Amino acid sequence: MTLKVYLSGEIHSDWRAQIIEGAKGLDVSFAAPVTDHAASDDCGAVILGVEENRYWHDHKGAMVNAIRTRKGIAEADVVVVRFGDKYKQWNAAFDAGYAAALGKSLIIVQPSEHDHALKEVDAAALAVAREPGQVVDILRYVLKGVLPE
Amino acid sequence: MTLKVYLSGEIHSDWRAQIIEGAKGLDVSFAAPVTDHAASDDCGAVILGVEENRYWHDHKGAMVNAIRTRKGIAEADVVVVRFGDKYKQWNAAFDAGYAAALGKSLIIVQPSEHDHALKEVDAAALAVAREPGQVVDILRYVLKGVLPE
Amino acid sequence: MTLKVYLSGEIHSDWRAQIIEGAKGLDVSFAAPVTDHAASDDCGAVILGVEENRYWHDHKGAMVNAIRTRKGIAEADVVVVRFGDKYKQWNAAFDAGYAAALGKSLIIVQPSEHDHALKEVDAAALAVAREPGQVVDILRYVLKGVLPE
Amino acid sequence: MTLKVYLSGEIHSDWRAQIIEGAKGLDVSFAAPVTDHAASDDCGAVILGVEENRYWHDHKGAMVNAIRTRKGIAEADVVVVRFGDKYKQWNAAFDAGYAAALGKSLIIVQPSEHDHALKEVDAAALAVAREPGQVVDILRYVLKGVLPE
Amino acid sequence: MTLKVYLSGEIHSDWRAQIIEGAKGLDVSFAAPVTDHAASDDCGAVILGVEENRYWHDHKGAMVNAIRTRKGIAEADVVVVRFGDKYKQWNAAFDAGYAAALGKSLIIVQPSEHDHALKEVDAAALAVAREPGQVVDILRYVLKGVLPE
Amino acid sequence: MTLKVYLSGEIHSDWRAQIIEGAKGLDVSFAAPVTDHAASDDCGAVILGVEENRYWHDHKGAMVNAIRTRKGIAEADVVVVRFGDKYKQWNAAFDAGYAAALGKSLIIVQPSEHDHALKEVDAAALAVAREPGQVVDILRYVLKGVLPE
Amino acid sequence: MTLKVYLSGEIHSDWRAQIIEGAKGLDVSFAAPVTDHAASDDCGAVILGVEENRYWHDHKGAMVNAIRTRKGIAEADVVVVRFGDKYKQWNAAFDAGYAAALGKSLIIVQPSEHDHALKEVDAAALAVAREPGQVVDILRYVLKGVLPE
Amino acid sequence: MTLKVYLSGEIHSDWRAQIIEGAKGLDVSFAAPVTDHAASDDCGAVILGVEENRYWHDHKGAMVNAIRTRKGIAEADVVVVRFGDKYKQWNAAFDAGYAAALGKSLIIVQPSEHDHALKEVDAAALAVAREPGQVVDILRYVLKGVLPE
Repeated sequence: MTLKVYLSGEIHSDWRAQIIEGAKGLDVSFAAPVTDHAASDDCGAVILGVEENRYWHDHKGAMVNAIRTRKGIAEADVVVVRFGDKYKQWNAAFDAGYAAALGKSLIIVQPSEHDHALKEVDAAALAVAREPGQVVDILRYVLKGVLPE
Repeated sequence: MTLKVYLSGEIHSDWRAQIIEGAKGLDVSFAAPVTDHAASDDCGAVILGVEENRYWHDHKGAMVNAIRTRKGIAEADVVVVRFGDKYKQWNAAFDAGYAAALGKSLIIVQPSEHDHALKEVDAAALAVAREPGQVVDILRYVLKGVLPE
Repeated sequence: MTLKVYLSGEIHSDWRAQIIEGAKGLDVSFAAPVTDHAASDDCGAVILGVEENRYWHDHKGAMVNAIRTRKGIAEADVVVVRFGDKYKQWNAAFDAGYAAALGKSLIIVQPSEHDHALKEVDAAALAVAREPGQVVDILRYVLKGVLPE
Repeated sequence: MTLKVYLSGEIHSDWRAQIIEGAKGLDVSFAAPVTDHAASDDCGAVILGVEENRYWHDHKGAMVNAIRTRKGIAEADVVVVRFGDKYKQWNAAFDAGYAAALGKSLIIVQPSEHDHALKEVDAAALAVAREPGQVVDILRYVLKGVLPE
Repeated sequence: MTLKVYLSGEIHSDWRAQIIEGAKGLDVSFAAPVTDHAASDDCGAVILGVEENRYWHDHKGAMVNAIRTRKGIAEADVVVVRFGDKYKQWNAAFDAGYAAALGKSLIIVQPSEHDHALKEVDAAALAVAREPGQVVDILRYVLKGVLPE
Repeated sequence: MTLKVYLSGEIHSDWRAQIIEGAKGLDVSFAAPVTDHAASDDCGAVILGVEENRYWHDHKGAMVNAIRTRKGIAEADVVVVRFGDKYKQWNAAFDAGYAAALGKSLIIVQPSEHDHALKEVDAAALAVAREPGQVVDILRYVLKGVLPE
Repeated sequence: MTLKVYLSGEIHSDWRAQIIEGAKGLDVSFAAPVTDHAASDDCGAVILGVEENRYWHDHKGAMVNAIRTRKGIAEADVVVVRFGDKYKQWNAAFDAGYAAALGKSLIIVQPSEHDHALKEVDAAALAVAREPGQVVDILRYVLKGVLPE
Repeated sequence: MTLKVYLSGEIHSDWRAQIIEGAKGLDVSFAAPVTDHAASDDCGAVILGVEENRYWHDHKGAMVNAIRTRKGIAEADVVVVRFGDKYKQWNAAFDAGYAAALGKSLIIVQPSEHDHALKEVDAAALAVAREPGQVVDILRYVLKGVLPE
C-alpha cells in the first residue's frame, strides 16, 4: 500500500522537508505545490505574456499553479494542510475545502492560537497536529500500525 | 428557472441583506450560515453538552454548523463568498474550496487590497466583485439577460 | 429550505415519534424504515412466496426492505441513527456506514455505555446525542439558527 | 488481473492469516485495519496528545484509524467482513455499509447464529460464507475459474 | 414520499395497466417507454428522414427512443423489468443492466421457465416476482408498510 | 414527466421561438443562453468593471455567461445545439461536448453542408435534425409517443 | 497506452481466443467471465453450500460470478459483447446495459439476423461488428492508427 | 508525478511533435487522436463495412475514433486543444467542452485572431497560449517548478 500525500499550505518553513525526511523508509509518495514563491507568483506572466494589470498578472499565475495543485489533491489519499503564524493563507484553507469536498483524508497542522479561527476547517479533518513530526507518526501508524515509543 | 444562491463568508456587515433586498422580484432562493455569532460558536455545547476543553467546545459547534453549511452549498447553483477586511476568514476560503470542488459557480466579493492574497481563490471563480450590488446585477443578468443601466 | 431527515435504527421505543412531534412547525420531512417488526421480517415471503429455508425467508424480506431504506437514505440531508441498549443492531451500523459513504450528515443517538463500541461510527458523525430531544434542538438550530433556552 | 481485497471486522482470531495463507499464489493484494487492539485504541492520544475525557480519547483514535480504513475500502475490489461471536462489532457493520454504498463486492463471513441479525447486511453482499477457507475458494474461482475439488 | 417507478420490458400484454390500476391511491409516479410498437420502430425515420438501409432505420429510431428511456430510468427509484415468454427481449435485459449500474432498485417480473436464463439479471435485483400484482404489493408495502391480507 | 430542454447555439435566427411555439401544450421547460448579443458580450465589463485589454473584457463576460450556461446544461434532460451557416460557433460545439460528457441526450440541428465537419459532434448525439420543427416532433414523440402525421 | 478490454457474452465458440490471438503485439489487456459453463453454473453451491431449491442454487452462483464480471467491466476501457445465434443471452444484454451506464466504449458483435432485436443495444455502442476479426482491426486502429490492408 | 497530457485539435501542422520534442526529459505521457486524416475519415467503413450514404460513412468513422478520444481525455490530467487558422474545428471545441465537464485542466493554443470567437472555450481553460513552446514551458513548470530563462 503506497500512501499518496499532498502537502499544502505554508511555504516559509522547512516543514515539508521534515515530513519527507521523517517518512523515509515508509511507502509514501509526496506531492506539493511549487514552493519557490517568486516563480509561483510570476509563472503566468513569464510563460504566457506580461500583463499591465496586476490583477490579471496574479490570475494567470494562479491558474497555471492550479494545474499542479488540482492534480496533487485529486490523486492524494491524504492531504496535509499546514497553517503558519503569518499571512492570510486563504489558499491553504481553500485547498482544505477542496480536499474535503473530494472526500480526502485531511490532516491539519496548526499552532494552538489558530484553533478557534480554524474550527470549521478542523471539523472536516481526521487529525489536527501541532508539529510535522506528528504527521510522520500518523503516516507510520497508518502504514505499519506502529506507534511512536 | 430558480437560481439557488448560498451566501458564505463575512458575518459582520449587512451585505447579505443588501443582496436579498436587491434581488427582490428575481427568481432566486437564498441560503446562508447561521449569522448569530454567539449561537454559532456555542451551538454544539448548548445542545450536546458542555466541554471543559475549549477545542472540543469549538469542534462540536463547528460540526453542528456543518450540517447547515454542507446542505446549503450542495444545493446551490451559485456560491457567493464575501471576504471582509478583518479576521482570518478561513471558513470563507474553506467554503470556496469546497464549492469549487463540487463544480459550483463561484462569485467572490472582496476589497482590492486582498486581491493578491485571494488569487488562488479567485482563479476558481466565475466573477470577482467589489460590492454586493454587483452580485445583484449578476443575478439579474443571469436570470433575465438584462444589464444595469 | 426543507430538511430531509431519515430516522434509522432502533424500533422498540417511540423515539421517532418524539422527534417528529418535537419538530412540529419546522420545515422538516421525515422518512424511516417500516417499524412494524413482523411485517418487516415477513414481507419478502408474504409477497413473493414462502421459503422453506429460513435464510432465504430473511433474505427476501431484507431485500424488499432495502427498496425503502436506500431511497430514504439517498434522499436524506440528515441521517439520524439511534442505537438502543438491546439487540445486535447491525442494520443500524450498516445504515450509518452507507450514509457516511454517501456524504450524508450523520447524527448518532446512543447511550453513553456504547461510546467505546461506537467510536468508529461516531467518528463519521457530525453530532452524537443522548436523547431524541437533542436531535430536535439540532434540527431547529440548523433551520432557524435558534438555540434551546 | 490483480484482485484488491480488504479484510474488515473481527480481530480476535487468525482468520486474516488463514485467508492470506490460502491465497498464496493467487494475484491478490490484501489490506486490513490495524489489528493491534491497544495501538488501535490509543493511536490518537499517543500521537496527537492525551485527552482527559475518554470520549475524545476514543474519537481521536477512531479518526486516525479512519485514514487507513477509508483508503483500504476505497481501493478494494472486494471487501470481506467477518462477524465473530463476541462483541458489538458495529465497526464491522459500518464498514459493510460503507463498502456497499461505494458499490464494492461484499463477502460476509458469519456464524449461522447471526443469520437473522445480519440479514440487512447480507442482502447487500454477493456471498455469505461460514469459514475463511470459503473466501479463499471464492478468490481462486474469481481469478482462475477453478472450483475446489 | 413519492416513489418514481419505471416500467421496462415486455409490451404485448397489459401488465403496466394492471400495476398502475393496482397502485391507485399510492404515492407513485410511473414512467415507461413508448409502447406503440409501430411508432417505436419508425419514429426515427418518420421524424428525421427515411433511410434506405434497414439497419439505419432501426438505429435512428432506437436513438430517439433512448431519449425517453434514459430519462425514465435515470429519474426512477425503482425499475421494474418484465420478461414475457416470447421474443428476444434484449432491450429489457439492457435496461436492467443500465439500471443496475446506476444503483436503482430493480424488480424483475418473469415466468419461472426463465429463471435459469435470467439468473445474472436476478442477481442484481431486490425482488423477483411472477405476477404484476406482486409488484403492486411491493409498492404498497414500501410506501405504507402494509402487507397484503 | 416534465422534459427540461436547453437550447444552445446559433442566436441569429428565431429557431428557439419556433421550437417553443411548436411545443406549446407539451410538458417541456426550456432554458437558453442570453441571446442579446451585445449584452452577452459586455456583461462582464458593465457589471464588474471596464477592462482596457479586449481579451479580459471578453473573458469576464464569458465567465459571467457561464453561470447561466452551466446551470442550464446541468439541469437539462435534453440539450439541443443548433449550428447555423455562419460564424465559428465554437461555443456551440463546446456546449455539445460539455453536455455529452455529462451524459445528456443531445439533439443537433445542422444544415447538411456541415455534416462532415460535425461528424464527431453528431457521433455523440441521439438525433441529428435539419429543422426546428423536427425537434418539436421529437419532443412530442418522447413525451406522448405520437408521431407527426 | 494500454487498452483494457472486457469480452462479454457468448461462451460456446472460440471468438475470445480469436481476438486475443489477433491482438498479439498490441498493448491490450483482456478480461472475461469464467467460460467454463459448468463451473460458472455451480460455483455458488460448490463453494458456499448446496441449495435444495434450484432458484437459489442459480442465485448463489450468479452472485459469485458477479464479483468477476463487475470488476472486469468497471476497469475496462472497451467492453465487447458478442451475441451468438442461440440461447437467450440476457446476461450479455445486461452487461451491455451495465457498461453503457458506466460510459464504457461498447463494441457489439452480432449476426445480421439479430439486427432488429438488438437495435436498442446497438444504439449505445460505438461499433457493431460481424466478426471477431473486425474487433481486432478496431483495437489495432485505436492503438496504432493503422487500418487493415 | 507523471503528467498525462492529451493533445487535441488541429492536425495539419507539427505542433504535437514540437511539444513532445520540447518535453523530452519531463515525466509526461502523451496521447492524441489518430492524425492520419484519411485513416481517421475512413476507419469505420474500412473496418465495419462500406456505406452508400456519406453521412453514415462519416458516422461510423467518428464513432470508432471516439473509442480512442474518450479514453485519451478520460485518462488525461491536462488536455491541450489547439485551434489552427483554417477549417471549422468543431471537434476541437467539442473535446474542450467534454474535457471541461470532466474537470480536466485545459490549455488552449490559439492565434490571437480567434480570441473573441473562443472566449467561451477560454473561460473554461487554465491557460491560453499562442505557441506550442509555451505549452512545454507550462508542463516543465508544473512538473519541476522551473520557469524558462
